[in-house]
Amino acid sequence: MKAKIFVTLKKSVLDPQGKTIQKALNSLGFKDIEDVRAGKYFEIKLSKGTKKAAEKNVKKMCEKLLSNTVIEDYNFKIEA
Amino acid sequence: MKAKIFVTLKKSVLDPQGKTIQKALNSLGFKDIEDVRAGKYFEIKLSKGTKKAAEKNVKKMCEKLLSNTVIEDYNFKIEA
Repeated sequence: MKAKIFVTLKKSVLDPQGKTIQKALNSLGFKDIEDVRAGKYFEIKLSKGTKKAAEKNVKKMCEKLLSNTVIEDYNFKIEA
Repeated sequence: MKAKIFVTLKKSVLDPQGKTIQKALNSLGFKDIEDVRAGKYFEIKLSKGTKKAAEKNVKKMCEKLLSNTVIEDYNFKIEA
């Protein structure tokens, strides 16, 4: 089983990395960009268990280690 | 329109960050983890154009700026 996890800064938190990427893309000629947000992405291979158990586990991993829930949101998908 | 972009290290490239996260998760009690790969995630809001044009543009952005295609793979989804 594979978990795909996305961690992004909360909407209310400024994202200077995203702004820098936006400026760089603008200067490369991509003009119709409204906003860029940068985040983290993790792929975790799990060896066993049900999908439900995996969801529970991945949620715990996100809250304990993978994201800082004060300033970040996380989101994940479990795939077979 | 919104593009969600995932950049990961190629499979043949060692991922020390992923390995470190894997060890940290193990030491937190998550034992059934086979592999962790760490990557980057970007959300880009595009102001106009068709889905097809957006796909073409985002592909260019990935190749020019967002990923290092020598060692990284990218993948994206365009959402309305």
